[in-house]
This record gives sequence, C-alpha cells and structure tokens, in this order.
Amino acid sequence: MRVFRPDHGLPPFSSVLGLPLIATVGKVVVSWNGTEVALRRQSTRSVSSRVVKLTVLGGCGAWPAADQACSGYLVEQEGFSVLIDPGYATMPRLLALARAEEIDAVLVSHGHPDHCADLNPLLRARALGEARPPALPVYAPPGALDAVLRLDERMLADSFVLHDLAPSRELEIGPFRLNTWALPHHVPNAGLRLSGAGKTMAYTGDTGPAGTLVDLARDADLLLAEATYPEEVPEEDAPYLSTALQAGRTAAAAGVARLLLTHLWPGTPPEPALAAAAQSYSGDLAVASRGVTVRL
Amino acid sequence: MRVFRPDHGLPPFSSVLGLPLIATVGKVVVSWNGTEVALRRQSTRSVSSRVVKLTVLGGCGAWPAADQACSGYLVEQEGFSVLIDPGYATMPRLLALARAEEIDAVLVSHGHPDHCADLNPLLRARALGEARPPALPVYAPPGALDAVLRLDERMLADSFVLHDLAPSRELEIGPFRLNTWALPHHVPNAGLRLSGAGKTMAYTGDTGPAGTLVDLARDADLLLAEATYPEEVPEEDAPYLSTALQAGRTAAAAGVARLLLTHLWPGTPPEPALAAAAQSYSGDLAVASRGVTVRL
Repeated sequence: MRVFRPDHGLPPFSSVLGLPLIATVGKVVVSWNGTEVALRRQSTRSVSSRVVKLTVLGGCGAWPAADQACSGYLVEQEGFSVLIDPGYATMPRLLALARAEEIDAVLVSHGHPDHCADLNPLLRARALGEARPPALPVYAPPGALDAVLRLDERMLADSFVLHDLAPSRELEIGPFRLNTWALPHHVPNAGLRLSGAGKTMAYTGDTGPAGTLVDLARDADLLLAEATYPEEVPEEDAPYLSTALQAGRTAAAAGVARLLLTHLWPGTPPEPALAAAAQSYSGDLAVASRGVTVRL
Repeated sequence: MRVFRPDHGLPPFSSVLGLPLIATVGKVVVSWNGTEVALRRQSTRSVSSRVVKLTVLGGCGAWPAADQACSGYLVEQEGFSVLIDPGYATMPRLLALARAEEIDAVLVSHGHPDHCADLNPLLRARALGEARPPALPVYAPPGALDAVLRLDERMLADSFVLHDLAPSRELEIGPFRLNTWALPHHVPNAGLRLSGAGKTMAYTGDTGPAGTLVDLARDADLLLAEATYPEEVPEEDAPYLSTALQAGRTAAAAGVARLLLTHLWPGTPPEPALAAAAQSYSGDLAVASRGVTVRL
C-alpha cells in the first residue's frame, strides 16, 4: 500500500497519533480518521455538468463513532440531489453541503435507524424552516419508516410523500433510473442501482450473501458495498451482513470500476478491510467516511 | 460588546464571512459559528477534582444546523458523568469526549426528538460494543421516550433502566442531587436543578413563561435556559417556548452567576439573543454551541 502525501495542508503521514492519514489503494486517494478530502481518481478527468457526484456524509455501521456519522450518501446530477440512507448524525453533515429544501428525493435501503433516523430532522428542517418546499418524495421498503416517522407524527405529515420500494422495480427519479433488488438482512432491505448521465452506482444497503448482488453491481461505475467486517461475519449474523472479502469478490465478478466499502463496525480500522477486498478486487478501492467524494 | 482576539489560532474578528467569531459579553468568552473553544471566566480559577464541568454537545433548537447538533449537555463531577438531553446528532460529539460506557446516567427534559433521539445510538453503542456496561439509568417524564425506544425495541431492552421523572421530586444521582419542576411545553417538560460539590446548575428544558422558573434557578452557578427566540415567541407558541429576553429576566430575578442561552432557532445569530438577555441580566452570559465548556 503506497503512502501518498496530500497537497491540501493536512499533516504528513504518521504525524497524527502515529496513524497513516492518507494512502492510495488501487488508483484512488483514501482518507481515514474522518479527515475530509476528496476521493479522486489520480488521472485527470474533465467534469461536466452531467457528472454524477457521490458525497459520503457518514459510513459507520450501527452507531456513529466520534465525530463521524452513520450511513448517509448524497448523490447529485444536473442539480438533482438524492439522499440515500439518512442515518444517525448525517443531518448536520448534509446541511453543511446543501439546504434542506435542495434535497429532491430520499431513498432508504431498510428501516434500521442507523440508515434512516435522521430523516426525521430533515423533514423538520423542511416543514419548519422558512423555505417550505413541496412534500419530499421518500422511497423505502413498505413499513420501514414507521418507527422513525412516529417520532414527530402529526407535525410532519404534510412534509413527505412515501413511496414503497418494492423489489425488482424500475422507477424514474428525476434524471436517475432506479432499479431495486430484495437482499437478505434482518429486515427487508432494498439493493439500489441508480443510473444517470451514462453512469451507474450500485448500493447494497445491509445484506448477507446473495447471488443477485452481481446483477445489482454489473459493470457499475461504483459499487458502494456494506462490509461490516473485514473477513468474517459472526455466525448468527452471517446470513444478513457482509465482509470486505465478499464485497471484493462481488466487485470483481461484476466488473465494477470502483469499490467503496462502507458500514464498517465502529472501531474497525480501514486497513484490514481494504486488504481483504483487495484479495480478489484489483480496481479502485476505498473506505467510505465523512467527506469522501467520488465523481463518476 | 467588546471584541476579543482569541489566543488559540482562530482567525481574527471579521475575517470569516465578515462575522465576529469571538466576543466577550459580561465576563465570559463566547464562541459562535460552531467554533470549539472553552467558555472561560476571565478570572483564573483553581480547578479541583470536585469541580462540576458542563460541556455543550449541541445547542440547536428543532433540528441540527450545519456541523452542529441539537440539545445535548455533558455534566461531569468526580468521575461521574450525566448526559442531559441527547438530541439529534449529539452522539458523535459525545463519543469524541467519552466512551459510551462512561456515561453514568441520562436525564431527558421532555420527549421531543431534538432532545432525546440520540439516546438510541448511545444505547446501541453500550449494548453492541465490547465493554457491555450495566444497564444505563435513564430519567425522563413518563412516556416521553416511548417513540425513541421503539426505534430498536427488543435489541436494547436490557441496556437501560427507565425512571419516571415526576415533577417536584428530589433524587440522588451519583454525586448529584436532582430537583425537578413541571414546566409548560407542548409535551410534559421537566425543569432540572442539579447540585453537587457545592455547585448548582439549573436547566429549563423547553418551557413557556412560569413563575416557578425563578425557584428552579435560584442562586444557581449556571442557568442553562431555552431561548428559542431573541425577543418574541410567535403567538401560537408563546405559552410553550421562551425568549432570551425572558431568560435574562429570570436569571436576574434568581440571582444566577452565569446564564447560558440555548435552543436558538436554527439560523438565529447569537448577537440579538445576547443583547436581549443583557437588557435585564448583567452577569456572565453566552450562547450554547458545540464545544463550549463551563466549569462551575
């Protein structure tokens, strides 16, 4: 793993608690320790208005670690902004990038609160703020948001329109086409494949092993893959969660251009996850943490 | 209002978006824009192990603004840590200061999620992390946490012990004595007066005007007072929320040593709130935002 000295004023390698801050893995610049830095292809690419941009708000599994947030991904194309999985503590990260009324749609993979709890403050900001935007389209598996929406039941009732995310569906959402897969988790979980501007990203949500993951990710420009553990899921959760090792195999089999590992268990360092995925996947590879951006 | 040039490397006055970053009001150093800086008395005080320390995790009303958090206050004395009001996005701030298992008790003023939503990830961190601490004592008005605890019902059932916070009660919580007042809000709201090591802090939760606020705050070393608006609450909420003007009057009438205004509506600058409170209160005065600390 070659260490890269960043050019944006961050401390050099090993200057912070003896940990590497930035490294390159495959062709992508990787940050950890929550440092905010663009995740860039080292080859220079022209960026057009039709680029699809992903910004990671947070990537912690289960609960948000110090100064981090749980799952949360902002996907933008042609001025259309889709928020995927507004997990715990993602809202102040989102509002550092966009106004609440600028979000055009929300996609929720499943109803665990580390993937959807902060939908509630987003709806508050829209319902109670000055802009008063139209009702927000929210797509989630049936019933997934029942508990979160009960946090503020009546006050927010007009602030959203809920759409059921059924498996094996194709939907148009702004400039994006969305395809869904039912994937195995403790609760119904929708794998999401989002295409626009000739680019495709695939997101597993939280999932156990499934043959359809390769279909979900086939030839994608980016696979954002839950990888709670580096190499082995504890036995009782093995049908419902994945490893970085498995994510690497899926990425290789599907021929994806980039693999972004996410939902690492709090306290898991990125190195073993990256190393496990790299056993079978030789393309661009990184770990999602807040501030990481990917331009497709 | 005298402008103070800080000594910790922050940009000078007016260098960031033309806004003052730091100012002194009364005798206390105030930060805004979310800058992290200790709120210090300008007189040097010896700090003993029996000092009571308050750290603000967040102070936004309603929803967390960019890079901020909602209500959340860590109070520490003699190694005993009480978390008051774990609002949205407070968890990653808390875990930057303490491990989840180091929290000894949680007090919740009322059941609105901007005051209690992140109890859920705190319980997750304790139930699913490696330390497996004993069940966390959680004090809240009856029923206030029903919705939040439903986010993860069964998984977290053994991770906490819920105690009803009835009004006009006196409880011992570690080295602290807690007294409670029923205060007017849209939902049952407990005013909290916490005493330990010869020091006392009073917290209003969210409250409309009430004569008993002066009893709650009488001679306190710190009054942490909801001040959603600077000078006027919109008519429909006037019985249930407060202004900085009212908080200043309460602080003056109660003879408190310091007044920390909190729960400002997102986007409200601190200046008009500070100015409104200073109309009647001449003591130490500041606005709560993340990273502000007060040693009593």
